[in-house]
Amino acid sequence: MIATVGFDDDAVVLLDQSRLPGQVQYQRCHTPEQVAQAIREMKVRGAPLIGVVAAFGLALAMLRYQSTESGLDMDQYFNSQRELLASTRPTAVNLFWALERMQRLYRDESHLGARHVALRLLQEARSMYQEDIAVNRAIGENGEALLAPGSRIMTICNAGSLATCGYGTALGVIRSAHARHKIEMVWACETRPVLQGARLTVWELTQDNIPVTLITDNMAGYTMKLGKVDAIIVGADRIAANGDTANKIGTFSLAVLAQYHSIPFYVAAPLSTVDVSLPDGHVITIEERDQDEVRRCADKYITVPEARVFNPAFDLTPHDLISAIITESGVIKAPFESGLRRLKEGR
Amino acid sequence: MIATVGFDDDAVVLLDQSRLPGQVQYQRCHTPEQVAQAIREMKVRGAPLIGVVAAFGLALAMLRYQSTESGLDMDQYFNSQRELLASTRPTAVNLFWALERMQRLYRDESHLGARHVALRLLQEARSMYQEDIAVNRAIGENGEALLAPGSRIMTICNAGSLATCGYGTALGVIRSAHARHKIEMVWACETRPVLQGARLTVWELTQDNIPVTLITDNMAGYTMKLGKVDAIIVGADRIAANGDTANKIGTFSLAVLAQYHSIPFYVAAPLSTVDVSLPDGHVITIEERDQDEVRRCADKYITVPEARVFNPAFDLTPHDLISAIITESGVIKAPFESGLRRLKEGR
Repeated sequence: MIATVGFDDDAVVLLDQSRLPGQVQYQRCHTPEQVAQAIREMKVRGAPLIGVVAAFGLALAMLRYQSTESGLDMDQYFNSQRELLASTRPTAVNLFWALERMQRLYRDESHLGARHVALRLLQEARSMYQEDIAVNRAIGENGEALLAPGSRIMTICNAGSLATCGYGTALGVIRSAHARHKIEMVWACETRPVLQGARLTVWELTQDNIPVTLITDNMAGYTMKLGKVDAIIVGADRIAANGDTANKIGTFSLAVLAQYHSIPFYVAAPLSTVDVSLPDGHVITIEERDQDEVRRCADKYITVPEARVFNPAFDLTPHDLISAIITESGVIKAPFESGLRRLKEGR
Repeated sequence: MIATVGFDDDAVVLLDQSRLPGQVQYQRCHTPEQVAQAIREMKVRGAPLIGVVAAFGLALAMLRYQSTESGLDMDQYFNSQRELLASTRPTAVNLFWALERMQRLYRDESHLGARHVALRLLQEARSMYQEDIAVNRAIGENGEALLAPGSRIMTICNAGSLATCGYGTALGVIRSAHARHKIEMVWACETRPVLQGARLTVWELTQDNIPVTLITDNMAGYTMKLGKVDAIIVGADRIAANGDTANKIGTFSLAVLAQYHSIPFYVAAPLSTVDVSLPDGHVITIEERDQDEVRRCADKYITVPEARVFNPAFDLTPHDLISAIITESGVIKAPFESGLRRLKEGR
């Protein structure tokens, strides 16, 4: 299994996913600014992963505190670094969840001194890393029970090893089902504009010898219509209390098409993705990214260079289009709110 | 208005659309084989246009008959050339319609000799060219009446000047509505894998100062959900007697999403696209194209080069998702069959 993030001496080490599948290359980030930039530029992406990467970034910041000459006291410095990392991406809640968890530890232990708290923060980030893998394996086990042998599963973006610390959420379910010989085919939507499906999901599944077929995003509906899809499984960037789900742009369209074809539509995500502070999804900030992401493909302009563009990175799938939410603590069906609150509080 | 096809001395002259929007370049085809290859490789594309291009190609073939040393008699030669051109693309019926019209003329006049019939075929192709522009203008006028001032229209692929001999079908409606100041915005879906939306529609509308915003195909549903779309207008490659419509891959998904959002979904096409010999769309051959079209974008691999791919070039939209079919002879609403037959027979 390929490592997506690690900590090595004095650097956060990241697999640079923007170079996949052509190159498998790691980047050493020696400063929290470099970590923040890697998240912003989507060298690392995937809701669970960016949470853990940000946690490592914050631990790195505190390890560097005594050598920096910021002129800030320790609390001010911690907060400025936390804010730097929190400002990288607005939609995935795992980022804020991870930084909050780090902040709680900081509050409890900062009186023991900078070096102590820095090492404790690093330990905490490493725990999150290990927990994330365990959580994904549990999601996989819980989700695979929903699938019948011979399943043909459609997915979008990459909710796999590469979106997490390992194993994956949506692809974790597929991995667990594959281990039980249940997967006949995975349909990977290419996921323009950044092509995480074509670049990452196809590569990741090919490495594991899980059968995968690539389609462009506009082929999803017709592929369903031909009777080639038994279930759709996607990841999530934020899930509101009522089950409304923000995820990669295109997810909502798949959910509508699934309903039209009576195909089950599953969201697979850790409970850290569930934000029970939001009654529904309409207040989730949907990130809009650089217009050139759409104007360009594979580093070349594919349209008039000055074309007007709309580039939302995510969309919102209303809860009534979701058949079940697969978490590490169990599978929740509608109505989602009571189930999500119960599992969140049970932790 | 840019010319998409012409006949000049001894060559069919084609605007090479595969180079747009970067280069505006014409290709001179001196043989019917070159014409066939240009259609096959989608240097010219768009159902109405490939019909007329094939007609010019057949006229070119007959003009060359006496200088070829095929060893075939004139009828055999004519049929072999007709078949060559008919074999280029399987889905759009306009191709077969145009070649059939040429064949009828050939049958009526071939007894007058090769030179005579060749000139008459060229004349017929030129008539088709002129008729196509007139037909598109009529489609535009009939369709614009459906639109209210301030309309925001979504479209896919390019059903514009570039898909026809000029003015366009879906974009013809938009042009006519724009002339009456009714168009607030056109949403152009980029239309992977060949990107006719990003490359052609954005370029064509920009040239005419019609406001256009480019989105990736997977953003269509979310854009509708945000309340930014008042109607969807698409072209067609073949329409069955009951209204089932084959068109560019992704059209079906837009129709499902339109129904979910109660947005009217219009098909704009000449009656030559209507194939009343087919009771419904299920027998229409859906062309599958080279897997590398999906594996590559802007001439670069965007995935594992050996990735398995599904690449249907078209899909089928069932008639019950279509609000109206806009033709040169009028707008037809459901049930489509009686209306389509009446208009076809009225010609």
